[in-house]
Amino acid sequence: MAKAPVLTPRADDFPRWYQDLINKAELADNGPVRGTMVIRPYGYGLWERMQAEMDARIKETGTQNAYFPLLIPQSYLTREADHVEGFAPELAVVTHGGGKELEEPAVVRPTSEMIINDYFSKWVQSYRDLPLLINQWANVVRWELRPRLFLRTTEFLWQEGHTAHATEEDARAFASHIHRQVYEDFMTNVLAMDVVPGRKTVKERFAGAINTLTLEGMMGDGKALQMATSHELGQNFAKAFNTSYLSKDGTQELVWQTSWGSTTRMIGALVMMHGDDNGLRVPPRLAQTQVVVLAIKGDEPVLAKVREIGDRLKAAGIRVHIDDRTDTPFGRRAVDWELKGVPVRVEIGPRDLENGTAMVARRIPGGKEAIAVEDLVRLLPAVLEEDQALLLAQSRERRESRTTEVSTFDEAVEAAVAGGWARIPWATLGEEGEARLAEHGATVRCLVAEDGSVPSADDAPGNVAVVARAY
Amino acid sequence: MAKAPVLTPRADDFPRWYQDLINKAELADNGPVRGTMVIRPYGYGLWERMQAEMDARIKETGTQNAYFPLLIPQSYLTREADHVEGFAPELAVVTHGGGKELEEPAVVRPTSEMIINDYFSKWVQSYRDLPLLINQWANVVRWELRPRLFLRTTEFLWQEGHTAHATEEDARAFASHIHRQVYEDFMTNVLAMDVVPGRKTVKERFAGAINTLTLEGMMGDGKALQMATSHELGQNFAKAFNTSYLSKDGTQELVWQTSWGSTTRMIGALVMMHGDDNGLRVPPRLAQTQVVVLAIKGDEPVLAKVREIGDRLKAAGIRVHIDDRTDTPFGRRAVDWELKGVPVRVEIGPRDLENGTAMVARRIPGGKEAIAVEDLVRLLPAVLEEDQALLLAQSRERRESRTTEVSTFDEAVEAAVAGGWARIPWATLGEEGEARLAEHGATVRCLVAEDGSVPSADDAPGNVAVVARAY
Repeated sequence: MAKAPVLTPRADDFPRWYQDLINKAELADNGPVRGTMVIRPYGYGLWERMQAEMDARIKETGTQNAYFPLLIPQSYLTREADHVEGFAPELAVVTHGGGKELEEPAVVRPTSEMIINDYFSKWVQSYRDLPLLINQWANVVRWELRPRLFLRTTEFLWQEGHTAHATEEDARAFASHIHRQVYEDFMTNVLAMDVVPGRKTVKERFAGAINTLTLEGMMGDGKALQMATSHELGQNFAKAFNTSYLSKDGTQELVWQTSWGSTTRMIGALVMMHGDDNGLRVPPRLAQTQVVVLAIKGDEPVLAKVREIGDRLKAAGIRVHIDDRTDTPFGRRAVDWELKGVPVRVEIGPRDLENGTAMVARRIPGGKEAIAVEDLVRLLPAVLEEDQALLLAQSRERRESRTTEVSTFDEAVEAAVAGGWARIPWATLGEEGEARLAEHGATVRCLVAEDGSVPSADDAPGNVAVVARAY
Repeated sequence: MAKAPVLTPRADDFPRWYQDLINKAELADNGPVRGTMVIRPYGYGLWERMQAEMDARIKETGTQNAYFPLLIPQSYLTREADHVEGFAPELAVVTHGGGKELEEPAVVRPTSEMIINDYFSKWVQSYRDLPLLINQWANVVRWELRPRLFLRTTEFLWQEGHTAHATEEDARAFASHIHRQVYEDFMTNVLAMDVVPGRKTVKERFAGAINTLTLEGMMGDGKALQMATSHELGQNFAKAFNTSYLSKDGTQELVWQTSWGSTTRMIGALVMMHGDDNGLRVPPRLAQTQVVVLAIKGDEPVLAKVREIGDRLKAAGIRVHIDDRTDTPFGRRAVDWELKGVPVRVEIGPRDLENGTAMVARRIPGGKEAIAVEDLVRLLPAVLEEDQALLLAQSRERRESRTTEVSTFDEAVEAAVAGGWARIPWATLGEEGEARLAEHGATVRCLVAEDGSVPSADDAPGNVAVVARAY
């Protein structure tokens, strides 16, 4: 008789599989207030590694971290008209503080454009103060009616970058740099995720932006997920907050701005892009634990060997966890590490000691083989890099095999409904076609140029719309 | 004529000096909602370094980071009676979400004991799940009627640790380990702060704790500041949340718990402990910028030399910032770095190029001297360590010289009012004397044993009460 599956198989019920995995791999739990979540240590460890990798890339651009208040006076939100319209339905409002009703209610930030712009207008005086490059790691709250762990939660964690520049060209170049050299580089090279960089249509733009750049990923069920966005804000906020500077020529000029963000939603994407019916598969460069060394039994010689191997792998720069909790059955622990997607398991039992070998299980391609203990330090770094590349190749292959070139609206809908992406000339689809996609639960995920690059304008000749259903 | 001072002198008006320094060193601004603050990049950089140093020490204990929701159902707060009484007057309450009035209001967390305990009660089942060691880096909100930047703000950033153990001894040992090996070690060896480890009296305990351990620091004006606390919670929360485990013997047992926290208040302490009339002085081990290399003028040979020196110092493991903004006058930049307290300035101008020297200014002891460029890499690491030790010695000397051994209540009050600390036998002061201190704006900061160690009980023979006015 076959063993009962640990998770609902993906093919049976993808959303249920997703919930099962998050629960059993101990990534997160639902919080008590509707739509909130508790990020458990294993899930938070993924976020910490994402933060470390992203933060280094963000700082490379000359951007500095800062922290702005959680609570924003309600009146701030009305300053930029498009912006308030975009966020009004999602706000959490604090009406009482310190036992009294507040004179002016405060909203819990849904994003920090408003409050950061207020300070930018004070801090920017001269061309010498530009560019002003600020990033914030913070929590934000957007009331969520149909919550799903990591993908749509009432509170989520993110980084939000906000910058002010002297010219439109500087702002445009910076938004693009974040889009490609920070976000795309991180997703491709650390998350091992195939992503498509593109430009949002006017309909899909961020509230208050003049251009939104996006990275779209294809999940295991063929739906799209918006992974991160980078916005050119033009002078919309500069006008609303009167953020201006004295130029070298002595004239007073409004600044040009960008904002850009990425969130804990990336953890959901990691699950849906790399997970399989046995659990998560974590890319080795992201993994907080790259190799877990397991003692099969609690004999002292086995435990000593496990510790020795662990120390040698750590010394070789590998992130190692020692599992010597032999009061829990070995089989259960092996299934747990499989669920959690740790890239490599090195298993040691009494028989391995005799043979001078260890059983090495690779989570990403699957399979197990006995390897001489003395070869582990030499072989495992290459195994980890190989499996990192394999994950990326698998996600690219999926996207390519499930993307269809089409030339009519009906074909685009058909491809999206079947669980794939359609590429259709934007000139064929147009804003009218885009509006009708909603009837079929599909959207234009982004516009790309014929050669795959990011278009400089919505209506550039040869623009292709990527159409899909999305999370 | 003497130059006008950059800051209000400390001796004239200490609180005003503090405000001036925070403003001019660009550490923080007031936020728009009463009591909130904007932590500017230079101030946030101090926090990031504190986080990195603390986080490493916390993880060394086996504690893992996680994240719990900001919003807590109001009903949760009533579960632990002492706890709710302690926090009720400070709460911010969300009554509306997503455009509707909520069925049950949610409070913005003032601390996470309640919500974390709810999950602990689900996660802890067996002795195998213990100890459960969780830490969270987060923002919290406590409505503040008399706010002061960093010291008392309506929102602040902190880490809060929460642990569950099988026995009272385990919990007690863990709370003590955090107190001494994490907090005291960090403050002494990174912040260069003399701190006194002690035990809070019953009156000063955390709401819901059976014992609170504290570290008290003496500020530049002789007042005390509570730097961080570590609590034994006994089984108070375990009872309230029914957090129990199946022991090895098959019996059901309540867990024993701890919680412990440290906040952005440490930045305020840094200012008040190490600042002088010229600005902040940042301990080298904490400093994000340990050495700033300044170009006095914008000539190409000067700029090239500045970059070369910067690269060589970076290669030697020093955290370096290059200041080549020669469109701002040199004198103004020098004053700014002085205000920000960067430990060492290396200044290069055309004359230095000719001589093969650089002017080295040391912020902590003060003074400038010409040093041969080729000696910088060899000498500066030792200079930084010397200045780190000097800061710690200065803060210790201040505390010792301004602490008085007294034997009566009146002498204790006199010492505190004069801007110092008094040490008085606890048996002499007692709870009755402690209550009367309030009339003089003083409190018992902590109890210490005669030999300086931390007492194991409030009424241990020989306990000494440290009495002071405090922030």
